[in-house]
Amino acid sequence: MITPETKIRMGMVGGGPDAFIGQVHRCVAAMDGQIELVCGAFCSDPARSESFGHSLGLEPERCYPDFQTMIAREAALPPERRMLFVAIVTPNHMHFAIAECALKAGFHVLSEKPATVSLEQACALRDRVRASGLKYCLTHNYTGYPMVRQARDLVASGELGAIRKIVVEYPQGWLASMVEQTGQKQAGWRTDPTRAGSSNCMGDIGTHAENLAEHISGLRLKELAADLSRFGEGRTLDDDGNVLLRFEGGAKGVLHASQISTGEENDLNIRLYGEKGGLQWKQQEPNTLIVHRLGQPSQIYRSGQDYLSPAASSMCRLPAGHTEGYLGAFANIYRSFAADLRRVLSGDAGSESSADYPGIEDGVRGLAFIEACVKSSQSNAAWTPLQG
Amino acid sequence: MITPETKIRMGMVGGGPDAFIGQVHRCVAAMDGQIELVCGAFCSDPARSESFGHSLGLEPERCYPDFQTMIAREAALPPERRMLFVAIVTPNHMHFAIAECALKAGFHVLSEKPATVSLEQACALRDRVRASGLKYCLTHNYTGYPMVRQARDLVASGELGAIRKIVVEYPQGWLASMVEQTGQKQAGWRTDPTRAGSSNCMGDIGTHAENLAEHISGLRLKELAADLSRFGEGRTLDDDGNVLLRFEGGAKGVLHASQISTGEENDLNIRLYGEKGGLQWKQQEPNTLIVHRLGQPSQIYRSGQDYLSPAASSMCRLPAGHTEGYLGAFANIYRSFAADLRRVLSGDAGSESSADYPGIEDGVRGLAFIEACVKSSQSNAAWTPLQG
Amino acid sequence: MITPETKIRMGMVGGGPDAFIGQVHRCVAAMDGQIELVCGAFCSDPARSESFGHSLGLEPERCYPDFQTMIAREAALPPERRMLFVAIVTPNHMHFAIAECALKAGFHVLSEKPATVSLEQACALRDRVRASGLKYCLTHNYTGYPMVRQARDLVASGELGAIRKIVVEYPQGWLASMVEQTGQKQAGWRTDPTRAGSSNCMGDIGTHAENLAEHISGLRLKELAADLSRFGEGRTLDDDGNVLLRFEGGAKGVLHASQISTGEENDLNIRLYGEKGGLQWKQQEPNTLIVHRLGQPSQIYRSGQDYLSPAASSMCRLPAGHTEGYLGAFANIYRSFAADLRRVLSGDAGSESSADYPGIEDGVRGLAFIEACVKSSQSNAAWTPLQG
Amino acid sequence: MITPETKIRMGMVGGGPDAFIGQVHRCVAAMDGQIELVCGAFCSDPARSESFGHSLGLEPERCYPDFQTMIAREAALPPERRMLFVAIVTPNHMHFAIAECALKAGFHVLSEKPATVSLEQACALRDRVRASGLKYCLTHNYTGYPMVRQARDLVASGELGAIRKIVVEYPQGWLASMVEQTGQKQAGWRTDPTRAGSSNCMGDIGTHAENLAEHISGLRLKELAADLSRFGEGRTLDDDGNVLLRFEGGAKGVLHASQISTGEENDLNIRLYGEKGGLQWKQQEPNTLIVHRLGQPSQIYRSGQDYLSPAASSMCRLPAGHTEGYLGAFANIYRSFAADLRRVLSGDAGSESSADYPGIEDGVRGLAFIEACVKSSQSNAAWTPLQG
Repeated sequence: MITPETKIRMGMVGGGPDAFIGQVHRCVAAMDGQIELVCGAFCSDPARSESFGHSLGLEPERCYPDFQTMIAREAALPPERRMLFVAIVTPNHMHFAIAECALKAGFHVLSEKPATVSLEQACALRDRVRASGLKYCLTHNYTGYPMVRQARDLVASGELGAIRKIVVEYPQGWLASMVEQTGQKQAGWRTDPTRAGSSNCMGDIGTHAENLAEHISGLRLKELAADLSRFGEGRTLDDDGNVLLRFEGGAKGVLHASQISTGEENDLNIRLYGEKGGLQWKQQEPNTLIVHRLGQPSQIYRSGQDYLSPAASSMCRLPAGHTEGYLGAFANIYRSFAADLRRVLSGDAGSESSADYPGIEDGVRGLAFIEACVKSSQSNAAWTPLQG
Repeated sequence: MITPETKIRMGMVGGGPDAFIGQVHRCVAAMDGQIELVCGAFCSDPARSESFGHSLGLEPERCYPDFQTMIAREAALPPERRMLFVAIVTPNHMHFAIAECALKAGFHVLSEKPATVSLEQACALRDRVRASGLKYCLTHNYTGYPMVRQARDLVASGELGAIRKIVVEYPQGWLASMVEQTGQKQAGWRTDPTRAGSSNCMGDIGTHAENLAEHISGLRLKELAADLSRFGEGRTLDDDGNVLLRFEGGAKGVLHASQISTGEENDLNIRLYGEKGGLQWKQQEPNTLIVHRLGQPSQIYRSGQDYLSPAASSMCRLPAGHTEGYLGAFANIYRSFAADLRRVLSGDAGSESSADYPGIEDGVRGLAFIEACVKSSQSNAAWTPLQG
Repeated sequence: MITPETKIRMGMVGGGPDAFIGQVHRCVAAMDGQIELVCGAFCSDPARSESFGHSLGLEPERCYPDFQTMIAREAALPPERRMLFVAIVTPNHMHFAIAECALKAGFHVLSEKPATVSLEQACALRDRVRASGLKYCLTHNYTGYPMVRQARDLVASGELGAIRKIVVEYPQGWLASMVEQTGQKQAGWRTDPTRAGSSNCMGDIGTHAENLAEHISGLRLKELAADLSRFGEGRTLDDDGNVLLRFEGGAKGVLHASQISTGEENDLNIRLYGEKGGLQWKQQEPNTLIVHRLGQPSQIYRSGQDYLSPAASSMCRLPAGHTEGYLGAFANIYRSFAADLRRVLSGDAGSESSADYPGIEDGVRGLAFIEACVKSSQSNAAWTPLQG
Repeated sequence: MITPETKIRMGMVGGGPDAFIGQVHRCVAAMDGQIELVCGAFCSDPARSESFGHSLGLEPERCYPDFQTMIAREAALPPERRMLFVAIVTPNHMHFAIAECALKAGFHVLSEKPATVSLEQACALRDRVRASGLKYCLTHNYTGYPMVRQARDLVASGELGAIRKIVVEYPQGWLASMVEQTGQKQAGWRTDPTRAGSSNCMGDIGTHAENLAEHISGLRLKELAADLSRFGEGRTLDDDGNVLLRFEGGAKGVLHASQISTGEENDLNIRLYGEKGGLQWKQQEPNTLIVHRLGQPSQIYRSGQDYLSPAASSMCRLPAGHTEGYLGAFANIYRSFAADLRRVLSGDAGSESSADYPGIEDGVRGLAFIEACVKSSQSNAAWTPLQG
C-alpha cells in the first residue's frame, strides 16, 4: 500500500566524486524526506563507482559498474525493493541512451537538461515517453523558484496585458580563460562536441534562458536569428551567443548568453513587458520579483508573502525574508516529481499536462532552440524557425 | 567501526505538524545525507506525536509521547541503534529541562536558541555540558553562511584594523498587528512570558544580532543601554528594542531589533568599521559581502568564488552565482555538528573551542545579553554590564 | 515693479577658492536663473577675497574684505542695486554674528547649518528673525529631494498609521584617519571646537539626520540618550555617535552618525514604521522611496512619476529615470527661498509657517539636538530632554 | 581680452515654454557661471517667443521670431555683445538647417542629438564644420557622467584586455500606450516621421546606446542586424528595436532599446567584457561603476573618490556620496564646450580631436547607426554595414 511515508526509490547514473551536479541532485532529493537513493552507476570506472556508492551508504551490490547493468539488475529485484526512477546526471551525450533503456525496463526518468544532444533524439525520446506511459522530468530547475511561478501566474492572469517584448539573458564568465585546458572536468566535456552536442553555451545555459522565457510568458518561440561566437582560441563550440527572438502572436525579444562575460557568475535574468505591465526576475536575487503596472509605483513581490498565487506559495519553503536558494528551488522540482510518482503508485496515472514540473516537451523545445541557434548562426544569423 | 557512511542518528523534541522550525531542522539535517532521524517526541499530544512521526517514516515504537520517555527508552536501546543526539526545537521554556535530561542520559544535544530562558539556567547548562564531556550545538544558523565566515576571517586577519564600530540590526514586521490573537502558534508562544522567557523580541532575534556581532568581530560585548518597547497593545513582552553597545577594547555600536517594523521581513544586517577597512553583510542578500578598504574601491566578495578563505570556501555548497539560501546555511551547522560527533565516535573527543559551530558559550552570551537588555530597559536604559 | 524675471540679488559670506560648499551654493543659486550673485566677502584675506570675487565676474568694488563691510556698503546702495539676501557659508562659529548683522541691516538671510554654535545663540537668532520680519532659510538641503517630500506627505496623509519607530543613520568614513593633520581645510575646522562648536559629528551630520527624522515624521524629538565617541587619537570633538530617541507621542528610534565608518561615503538613510505601513529613503539612491503597506507588496515610488504628491512633483526637475542629484535638490531650497523673497518684494509678507523651506525653527531644533547629545554623552548617555 | 570671468554668450533656438529639454539646457548652461543666455528664438510663434524670452530676463530686442532672424541680427552686433554660439534644441528635422546657417554666419554650434535627420545631412554638416573652423558640440549628455569617463579610461588602459562583448540597452516605457494621441508634445513629434526622421526609438535613444558603446569601448561598430517594431497601433515609426552588433576587431554585442517596455523609466545600461575584466554602468545609478577583474572580487568604483582617473575626477562636482545627477553630467558637456570656446577666444584653435566633448563625428556615427538599423530591419534583419 502506498502511504505518504513510502519513500520514492531513486537510482542515479553519473554524479561521481567530482561531479558538482550529481551532489546537487542527491542533496535536493533528500531535502523533503520523500526520496531515497537506493542504487547508482556513478562513474565509468566500476571500482570507483562502487567505492563512491558505498561512501554514500549504498549497499555494495547496488553500486553498479554501468547503467545497463543497473537497469537490468534493478528490474530483476522485487517491486517493493527496486528503484522507481532513474536520475540521469551524466554529460549530455549519454542522456538519450540511458533514458531509453530505463523506459524500456519500466522505470520513470528524471534527467538533466538538455534532454538529448539532438532534436531528432529528443523527438524520439518524446515518442518513447508517450508510448511507455511512464513519467519523465527534465530538471529545468529555475522553474522551481517560487517567484518564477508567480511571474508565470501573473502573466497568465492577464494583468500585464498581452506580452510584447521579452529580454532574457544568461551571462557567465567561467570560460573567459581556457579553463578546459587546466583539467577542469565540466569545462572539458562542455567544450567537447562529442560529449556536449552541437552547442556548448546555448546547450548549457541558452536553453535555460529559452525555457524560462517560454515558461513565464506562456508563448512559443517561433523563429530566431542567432550570432554565436567562439572567443576562446581553438574552441570548436560556441562560448557566447546573441539571439533575436520572434514569438508566436507577435511578441519579440532578445536572448543573449555567454560564458566569456568576465566577472559574471550565473546572471540569468528575465524581463517581460506587456501592454499593461511588466516584470523582472533575477536568478541571483531569486526571492524578489519586480512587477510594473502602468501609471503605478512598481511593486516588489517577495517569496514567502501571503499575497502570492497558490502555486507560488506552495513552492515557498520559508517565511518571507529567509532566502530561498538554488537548492530549495531545485528540490521543488524533485518534490513535484515525487508527488506525481506517488500518484502513479496510487493508481492515478495522471496526464502529461497535469504534471507540475518540466517534461519531455520542454526537452524537445530546448533542442529545437539549440538546433535553430546553430543553424541560424551557420547562415550568418538568418531567421530560422524552431522545429519540433 | 565508524566510517564516513555511518549515519548520525537524531531524535527530535518538538517540531510537530504546524511548527515551521521543526520542518527546517529535519530538512537541513537530511541535506548532507549524514544524519538520520530515528525517533521523536513531536507534540504534547501523544497520539498526534505518533501519527506525525509515522508520517515522517519513523517506526511507531520510536514516536514517543514526551521527551522523558524518549530519552529513557532510547537510552535502553543497543548503542548501534539508539539515537546519538537530541535536537531540541520546542518553545524556549523547555530547552533547559530537555537538554539537561539528554545530557544526563549520555546524549549529545543540538538546541534552538536561546539556549534557556534565563542566564542562571544557561550557566547551569554550561556546567552540565562541560561536566558531561558531551557535545552541545546551539543553532545560531546565520553563522552558517559562507560570507559570515568570510567576514569573521577578514576581521581576524587584521586587514580591517582594530574594529571601532559595529551596527547590527534586525527589523521584522510580522508582529505589527496583533497576530497572536489570530491563533498563529509561533506568535502565541513568543509573546507569552511563560513560554518565551523574559523577552520576546530580544530573545528571538536580538540574540541573533548580538551573536552575529560577537561572532564576526571576535569582540565581547561589555555593557549596553537598552530601550525596549511594547507597541502591540496589551503585550507583556517587548516587540521592539534599541540598544547602545560598548565592547571590550573600546569599540562601540548600536543594535536594534524589531517585530513591529511594518513591511520588513527578516532584515538582519551588520556593518563593522575598523581603522583600515569595513564590511557589510545583509542576511537577505546572503551571498554578498561588501568589503571597504581605505582609499580603494569597495569590493564585492561573493560566495562560491576562489578567493574566499578556506573556512568560508568549505561552507559554500554551490558555484558562484547559484544562491546559497537559508537552508544551506542552516545545514552547515548540522554538518559541522555531525562531523564533530563523527570525531567523537572515532574516539577523538576534541575540545569545546575546536568545534566549528556555535555552542553553549554562545548560549550563555545570548542569555547574558537578553537579561542585560531587560534589566537596562527596566532602569530606563541605564548602562548594564553583561554577566556570565 | 517685481516681475518673474527680476533676479533675486545674493551676497555671499565665506565660500572662497577651496571651499566645497561655497561652490555648491553658487552653482545651485544659478540653476534656476532667478538668483544673481552680486557681491561677496569670500575669504578672510581681503586681496584673495577680491581676486576670487573677480574671477566669479563680480565688480571689484563689490568684493569685500569682510562681512561687516559688505553689509554696510550694500545697505548704502540704492535698493534696486543692493543685495537682497546674504548667503552664509562660513564655518559654524561665524554664522550667528553674520546673520545678526545682516538682519539688523535689513537683509534676508540664508545660512548653512547648524544655524549657530549654541542653542542659546539659536534662540537669540530666532528672536531676531521674528522681530525683523525678514526671511531666514537654513539649508537642510536633503529636504529638497522630491522623495523626501513624498515621504513626508505619505506620513501626513495617515496612510502609514501612527508612526512607532524611526531609524535614521548617517555614516561617513572621511575622518577614519587623521585627515585634519594633512592640511585638509574642512577637516581642520570641523574638528576644531573654536570653529565647529561643541560637536563635530553631531553638529555636522547628526543634525541632518535629526532634521530629516522630524521633517518626514512630523514628530518632535522629546528626549535622547547619546553615546558620543572620539576615535581619532587626540580629537577633542566627537567623530561618532549613537543615540536612542524618544519622540513626543510615544514613537521611539535610533540615530547613529559617524565620520569614522571606513568606506562609507555619505550614507544618510531613514526608515519609518507606522501601524499600517513603513517607508525607507536612502540619500545615495535619492530618486527611490520604498513604501511598505501591511500585507501588500512593497512599492517603489520614483521621482518624476505622475503618482507623486503635488508638492513632491513640483520638486522634480526631470522626467522619471533621469536622476535628480544633490545639486538639483539643493537648488530646490534656493528656489523656494527665492519664491518667498519674490512674494515679499510683491508685498506679500507671508508667515513663517507658510515658507516651504527649512527656517530658524529647524535651526533651534538642531542646536537643541546637538546640545542634548553633548550633555547626555557627558552624563554617560543619560536621557536628556531637548530644550528650546 | 579673454579672462576666466568672461562669460560665453549663448543664443538658443527652440526650447519654448513646454519643452523639457530646453529648460534643461538653460539650467545646465547656467550651473558653472560661465555661460550667459543672451538671445533666443524659442517658439515658432513670434509673440510667444518674445514673451517667453522676456520671462527669462532677455532683452526684448534679442527675443527673435525665428532662427534666421536671430542669426542675422546677432551677426550684426558688435563682437563683444553678440552671441558666441547657438544652442539647437528643436525637434530633429530642423537641426541641420539651423546649424548650417549658424556656421555660415560664423557662430559655433551646440546641438541636441541626433545631429540631423539623415546620414547624408550629417556628412554634409561634418563638411561644413570642418570647413568653417568653428566648434560643434553634440549633446550626448550621458558621456558627461564621471563614471562613464572612468569606464572609458579603464578600457583604454588595457586593464580589461581586449573587449569581446558589449551589451547595451535602453528600455523606456513612456510610449507603452498611445501618449501621442493625448496632446503630449514630445510624443507627438517623436512619432512623426516629418519631424523625427526615419526612426523614433532608434533615433531618440538607440543612438544614445550606440554612442555610449563606442565611447566607452573605443571600438567602431562595423555592422548590425536590426529587428525594429511598431507596437503602438498605427504608428509609422519604430517604438522598439533589437539589434545584433559586430564591431571592428571582432567584438560582438547586443543593443536593444524600447519605448514600450512598460514600467521602465530611462534604463540605459551598458556591460562590457574583455579578456581580463569587465564593467557595468547603469544610468539610473550613475555614480557607481562595477568593475570585474578575473579571479578577484568585483570592485565598486564611485564618483568623487580619489582613485578615479584624472579625467573622471575632473568631471565630479561633489564629494563621494553626494549624488551626481543628470543635470551635473549634462553641465559637464557644456563646461567642456565653454572651455574649448574660451581657448578659441584666446587664439588657440585646437583640433577636433582634442575637444573633450562629443562632436560632429559622433553625429555622423549616430546617423550611420540609425540608417543601418532602419535599412537592416526593412531587409528582415539582414546584416548591414555602417556607412559614413
